[in-house]
Amino acid sequence: MKQKKSTVLLLTALTLFVSSCAINTVNRKAGILTIQQQGSFLVGGTTISEPGKFDLTNALKPQGQTLHGDHAYVFYQIPPKARNYPLVFLHGAAESKKTWESTPDGREGFQTIFLRRGYGVYLLDQPRRGEAGKSTVATTITPTPDEQFWFTQFRLGNYPDYFAGSQFPRDSASLTQFFRQMTPNTGAFDVSIVSNACSSLFNRIGAGILITHSQGGGAGWFTAIKNDNVKAVIAYEPFSSFVFPTGELPKPIQSTSLFGELKGVEVPVEDFTKLTKIPIILYYGDNIANQPTSVWNKDHWRAGLEMARLWAATINKHGGNAKVVHLPELGIKGNTHFAFSDLNNLEIADLMAKFLRENGLD
Amino acid sequence: MKQKKSTVLLLTALTLFVSSCAINTVNRKAGILTIQQQGSFLVGGTTISEPGKFDLTNALKPQGQTLHGDHAYVFYQIPPKARNYPLVFLHGAAESKKTWESTPDGREGFQTIFLRRGYGVYLLDQPRRGEAGKSTVATTITPTPDEQFWFTQFRLGNYPDYFAGSQFPRDSASLTQFFRQMTPNTGAFDVSIVSNACSSLFNRIGAGILITHSQGGGAGWFTAIKNDNVKAVIAYEPFSSFVFPTGELPKPIQSTSLFGELKGVEVPVEDFTKLTKIPIILYYGDNIANQPTSVWNKDHWRAGLEMARLWAATINKHGGNAKVVHLPELGIKGNTHFAFSDLNNLEIADLMAKFLRENGLD
Repeated sequence: MKQKKSTVLLLTALTLFVSSCAINTVNRKAGILTIQQQGSFLVGGTTISEPGKFDLTNALKPQGQTLHGDHAYVFYQIPPKARNYPLVFLHGAAESKKTWESTPDGREGFQTIFLRRGYGVYLLDQPRRGEAGKSTVATTITPTPDEQFWFTQFRLGNYPDYFAGSQFPRDSASLTQFFRQMTPNTGAFDVSIVSNACSSLFNRIGAGILITHSQGGGAGWFTAIKNDNVKAVIAYEPFSSFVFPTGELPKPIQSTSLFGELKGVEVPVEDFTKLTKIPIILYYGDNIANQPTSVWNKDHWRAGLEMARLWAATINKHGGNAKVVHLPELGIKGNTHFAFSDLNNLEIADLMAKFLRENGLD
Repeated sequence: MKQKKSTVLLLTALTLFVSSCAINTVNRKAGILTIQQQGSFLVGGTTISEPGKFDLTNALKPQGQTLHGDHAYVFYQIPPKARNYPLVFLHGAAESKKTWESTPDGREGFQTIFLRRGYGVYLLDQPRRGEAGKSTVATTITPTPDEQFWFTQFRLGNYPDYFAGSQFPRDSASLTQFFRQMTPNTGAFDVSIVSNACSSLFNRIGAGILITHSQGGGAGWFTAIKNDNVKAVIAYEPFSSFVFPTGELPKPIQSTSLFGELKGVEVPVEDFTKLTKIPIILYYGDNIANQPTSVWNKDHWRAGLEMARLWAATINKHGGNAKVVHLPELGIKGNTHFAFSDLNNLEIADLMAKFLRENGLD
């Protein structure tokens, strides 16, 4: 009788323990998020000082006063028992760190997806954007209706039509969120200033992986050149500022892009060589032309993808490890310029996780 | 023998189960944060449409294009088993939601402190600020060295001296963070536009508590007037836009403030009456003059505190429940304009929690 009772107790306790463990396992997947530490800070930047002496009784005069600007803003979350390398996310043109947060239709973005997968996550607002708005240069912001252009440029479709099979949700609320998440520069974009701030972040946090989007790609290459703590670069549809060693610049690529011909950027070979020391992967979505076409958005990205392939070949010729993935070639169709927030973003995240695993970075 | 073995197993299992429960309890206090859901979205705002038809072959022309602007950006986190009323935080002038995140010296701010205490937390970037930068009006941003002015205005001290016993950390890195977290308007500040967006948020999330700082205070009153879902307002050092019923406006308060005399704002009595239906508390920090003084920062806030008291008296005369707390009168000394991120911010959080508890809002 006594033995029976203790067996019942044992089974009850074990059941409770096992179910509690089961909950913990589930939590890491889709339920409760666990976070060891979260917060935000500003990093990098410069300071302007107005000559003279600050006069307390005349405190609106600039003399003797300072302005701190051109820093990045960073929001970070670290899960318990985080993987070795945190992920640092840098947005593209006209975007903020929002780009990596909730998707336009309210699903989890890469911020939370990779947090669930055990990575520390750092999201930047680059200098002169979003919550890092304090700039050392003046600017004028003029509200200009241009969203139908961006719809097309970012390959949701050729406005007003979505591309057939587009991975962008079709409801108008999602499109409104997508338009509203764009946010202007509060000072001219400067790839050097952005990569300086990004490098300062890697000085602060140590080794990590840099993930860039679009215009952030150029700043990404320069960050990796400046800072050995960048252990890999994952670039979603980088376009501008592809860097080539002195003397190896390819011919500009002509296209019907509204931004004109696409040129590379020359850097000293010793800088370029730094990019050959780390694994680099570039992802491009769907509806990019294979041949020159008068459809300007498809042709813009055709030029970008061609330049990316020339660039990766140059990296690899110099002993590096760069790979260009055109998603449709893997059978992944319909992705816009924002694969990481498209309807299939879990599949896109799986691909990125696979890259990290295969390179021993997970 | 068999019984002994099962007893050992039982004890082991029970120990594991109990310790796992213990960890869960600890987690809610100071260690691991647990989050049911987190994400971000844009809310409110308007749309500009340029007449005409969008021309895909001439896509940089504004004709037929739209601009969505004047929305707020919101980042939210909801803990498991969240309390009934989430907390909505609205920053002050020249600040973003960063104001409620990590403190300048890297401790947890109200965002994480109240998340740990079981509240859902929504942080806003108000329209035309931070990641809600897309504005329907043009603006020019001119970098102006003025940080020594703000140091003084925000009562860290009279630059370069900190006030004796100031609750602001003394290291230069913290001061740098404080200066860098300021971020400019990307369009003129408009209390109506801010309160519209804030009200749209309460339409979306339902009943909640609104916490404002400084200039956000005015938008807070208008939000509570516009939306019954605001169940209480907690205002840290509100200054401008105190609303009074038609015919009950007090005389402007003269002071040596660099912003000139302080006036109230008239609203219809039926609007004002809405503020008498909810509990409201206003907190003011230290180093605010009791009498008019030529020390302009202390006098600026002397005027603010005087207006706050006139305002609360008017609310209460109309049957409301507003209270002004001058922290030094509770023996809480040294607080700057940013009590919620000062060195004693846990004590300040305790006070706020007590207000919520006493009003049955926790």
